[in-house]
Amino acid sequence: MSETSKMVKSDIEIAQDALLKPIGEIAAQLGLDENDWEPYGRYKAKVSANTLNKMSDYPEGKVILVTSINPTPAGEGKSTVTVGLGQALNKINRKAVIALREPSLGPTMGVKGGAAGGGYAQVVPMEDINLHFTGDFHAITTAHNALAAFLDNHIHQGNALNIDPRRIVWKRVLDLNDRALRHVIVGLGGVANGVPREDGFDITVASEIMAILCLSENLDDLKTRLGSMLIAYTYERKPVFVRDLNVEGALTLLLKDAIHPNLVQTLENTPAFVHGGPFANIAHGCNSVLATKMGAKLGDYVITEAGFGADLGAEKFLDITTRAGHFKPSTVVIVATIRALKMHGGMTKDELKHEDIDALAHGMENLACHIDTIKSFGLPYVVAINHFIFDTDREVAYVENWCRAHNHPVALANVWEHGGEGGKELAQLVVDTIENQENHFKPLYKLTDSIEEKIQTVVTKVYGGKAVDYSSKAKKQIKAFIKNGWDQFPVCIAKTQYSLSDNPKLLGRPKDFTIHVRELKVAVGAGFIVVMTGNVLTMPGLPKHPAALNMDIDQNGKVIGLF
Amino acid sequence: MSETSKMVKSDIEIAQDALLKPIGEIAAQLGLDENDWEPYGRYKAKVSANTLNKMSDYPEGKVILVTSINPTPAGEGKSTVTVGLGQALNKINRKAVIALREPSLGPTMGVKGGAAGGGYAQVVPMEDINLHFTGDFHAITTAHNALAAFLDNHIHQGNALNIDPRRIVWKRVLDLNDRALRHVIVGLGGVANGVPREDGFDITVASEIMAILCLSENLDDLKTRLGSMLIAYTYERKPVFVRDLNVEGALTLLLKDAIHPNLVQTLENTPAFVHGGPFANIAHGCNSVLATKMGAKLGDYVITEAGFGADLGAEKFLDITTRAGHFKPSTVVIVATIRALKMHGGMTKDELKHEDIDALAHGMENLACHIDTIKSFGLPYVVAINHFIFDTDREVAYVENWCRAHNHPVALANVWEHGGEGGKELAQLVVDTIENQENHFKPLYKLTDSIEEKIQTVVTKVYGGKAVDYSSKAKKQIKAFIKNGWDQFPVCIAKTQYSLSDNPKLLGRPKDFTIHVRELKVAVGAGFIVVMTGNVLTMPGLPKHPAALNMDIDQNGKVIGLF
Repeated sequence: MSETSKMVKSDIEIAQDALLKPIGEIAAQLGLDENDWEPYGRYKAKVSANTLNKMSDYPEGKVILVTSINPTPAGEGKSTVTVGLGQALNKINRKAVIALREPSLGPTMGVKGGAAGGGYAQVVPMEDINLHFTGDFHAITTAHNALAAFLDNHIHQGNALNIDPRRIVWKRVLDLNDRALRHVIVGLGGVANGVPREDGFDITVASEIMAILCLSENLDDLKTRLGSMLIAYTYERKPVFVRDLNVEGALTLLLKDAIHPNLVQTLENTPAFVHGGPFANIAHGCNSVLATKMGAKLGDYVITEAGFGADLGAEKFLDITTRAGHFKPSTVVIVATIRALKMHGGMTKDELKHEDIDALAHGMENLACHIDTIKSFGLPYVVAINHFIFDTDREVAYVENWCRAHNHPVALANVWEHGGEGGKELAQLVVDTIENQENHFKPLYKLTDSIEEKIQTVVTKVYGGKAVDYSSKAKKQIKAFIKNGWDQFPVCIAKTQYSLSDNPKLLGRPKDFTIHVRELKVAVGAGFIVVMTGNVLTMPGLPKHPAALNMDIDQNGKVIGLF
Repeated sequence: MSETSKMVKSDIEIAQDALLKPIGEIAAQLGLDENDWEPYGRYKAKVSANTLNKMSDYPEGKVILVTSINPTPAGEGKSTVTVGLGQALNKINRKAVIALREPSLGPTMGVKGGAAGGGYAQVVPMEDINLHFTGDFHAITTAHNALAAFLDNHIHQGNALNIDPRRIVWKRVLDLNDRALRHVIVGLGGVANGVPREDGFDITVASEIMAILCLSENLDDLKTRLGSMLIAYTYERKPVFVRDLNVEGALTLLLKDAIHPNLVQTLENTPAFVHGGPFANIAHGCNSVLATKMGAKLGDYVITEAGFGADLGAEKFLDITTRAGHFKPSTVVIVATIRALKMHGGMTKDELKHEDIDALAHGMENLACHIDTIKSFGLPYVVAINHFIFDTDREVAYVENWCRAHNHPVALANVWEHGGEGGKELAQLVVDTIENQENHFKPLYKLTDSIEEKIQTVVTKVYGGKAVDYSSKAKKQIKAFIKNGWDQFPVCIAKTQYSLSDNPKLLGRPKDFTIHVRELKVAVGAGFIVVMTGNVLTMPGLPKHPAALNMDIDQNGKVIGLF
């Protein structure tokens, strides 16, 4: 425990001390030409999506998916391990590229304060990545809300399409946590202000346009998908799509820069694509297909992160993203921390300083479930224990022994404290696993399965639940989706990230529970059906003391309060 | 009229054919070091606001303000003349820098389709400038709405400041034309969604944060001004400011990049700062103080544009911006077109093809009023006739003779058709005017005048109106502002741009009219009082066929539909 007394630098202090290379050097290191990328400041770039065309005969690098146990307030450090693993692979002379999601300003200003890794395993410049970055989310917000304005304007100007204002399914979005906007009435104040109707705002990361940006293979694919988005029904209950308003060209134009993956670097100058940022609880939770593909073409290994636990991000990566991107993961890294496992074993956050092997033993059940999930996809995997300075030797030994007893490959990652150097054991284990373990990857369900079968498959095989209960609204929606031919899409289940069930209080590995399907939404452009379970919200709120209260910038531009 | 039959290239085609220099060359041409600026793509940069510190002993260049007659649907081409004049000054071997406002996406997607000049007098890359550019407006939108979320969250989480939700004066914003958001009710749907209350969205260019960004001298000034913004009143009617919520640091952080002026170039590689974009009808309508100052330090001449007619943008530049920026204009260019003058003389848009000296003669009255305005500020001026290919020789001769008969310096500008070459006569006249004419500049009113006196002064001396009528609401507000000590601010009158009066239908030079003051808003951070007159709206609507319907981008990234 002597480490607690040494002066520990904050994430932002470490990031501000980093020696960054000009982004052109990082691009050159990847073999990119000057014409392949555009600078955004000295340390950020956008790499043109078109460069993938000229890479068609490059060999495919291995796709390493990083996922985790169910997150707890103790933190599991998945981004930190993703970044550290990339740095570590380079340390053992493998050419690795990282692919991460862009942080959302809502949680950054609310609780999180940032999402660019931690300690000596961060992507930089973290101040930019955590704020507006290259403007992708703002472009998505603008395109989303422009569409809403075109829709309301169409109704106001005569409603030639005969749209029923009570059956508009396209809401508005902001990249903020703002509970007051969840449910609003718009169009008030008289005839000049349009048609009054119920409406609401989601957070931008829940926008179908965010999902589409992350699933599109090129600008044409993007435009076709945008044109296919369902926005409303007519008074005759006929679906109305974006292409009926004839604005898919304008929306694509608004996304002309956002579609290109962003290139940055880690503290150790490992190249990292940071692109797209759908939440894994309310969306598909993976960075863009273009970013992961580009990483695989430019590196021997691309380490790609999926959001929250394997029940959310990884399941969606494996059932949705791999189908859209036509790629196959080589192995999965499942991140856990001893602190989080102890919380799954029943401890509260305040008790975590104390060694407790019993709680830890109980908590292992949560990890076991996620391991089973990855096995059910036929994939090889590695367990990565993200080491915290408070973990005791006995606790570490317990987890390592448990993994060995169950034949789970395991490695300790010290990347927060030591950067790539602290992840060499993990990196070597990942390389060995890819080279030696069999890979029988296949998605969990067939697209031809019924909507209910797909949901039941995920609930049984991934969540470990028993039954699925549908609200009467959900039942009606499924019937309508079948009628419209939308039942061939994969399902994107929106569920709390804290539990395998839809009740955030049930930690560990709950059994025999029922998942409650409240309502469904079809994302025809993204190509999936969103299944809303439990009380999951698509617009978060702010806490009593938002992280923003600690944020500041001095007259020289030095930033504090991001982490 | 033979020109009508030749193939005319569209603005975007001309822009796409331009030979742009890498932005680093433009920066070097201005004498900037590599460390003074950051690239945003190959042809855009942000120049650090801090570079002004090291320029303190550089000589001050001359500030040339460009304004115009009241705009009509015929177009008066003020941005085109501003750009063309900058190009022309370089042609006659004067070092000129241009300072423009950034276009707003609302009008671009709605009616305008773009705002980066026209023909051979454009700033480029126009596709970027007209869309998200370097993200400044998105940063302002985000900071504005984050503040709204912090405010609603404060009330939801216990309301320690005792804010009266019925007396919140901080609305939300989007950079779109969206009439359905003008008047909304937020916080619906139950306790978890906050406190229900009336609210509304303005367009981002009307945000006080936009005004503050354009009036701040540095990051510290920005933070102080943001902290001073009035957002609500308590149940005891005490004003609540941003600093009471303790979020001015976070808001400043969100604007850390937006504060730096954007550098681009014209079609002829003349340097241009394009920064900030408040509307001149509902805000102060001038590009940032930092951009104009930087232009004056880096060029012998900076040509800075103020929005709409001299009754709006120029009056506000001269009464508000010069006080905030501590600079003095050297001369004013008043732009008019023969087409627009004919509309002020009573013609409809469809009739403009026909020569009509009578209508033109009547329309001159509008120009005469704006000339009187500039004279009343004690400033020398030049009339620039922006030549259209349909103007007849007799019409041109009439305007030139009228100007000469009244001793108004006048020059024809052919910059749309011929670029800088077509503006040399104008450029020489501007240079001569600055060198030879006396300059007795002083703002129109004293800050110690009462609010009503300031308004009356502008109405009488600028609009040429007679009386001012105050609603009972406005009267109450003025009393409250005096009580709070806010009566020492200049006034920022929000008025229709189409008429000198507050009735958009009264063209030409109406007389004896009354201006109707509906309500006032105090912008304590920006440092002015917004005076809402007539029916002016702070959130525009879309037309029946928005410009967006013609916009598209092909698979190679070629853009159409911007102009």
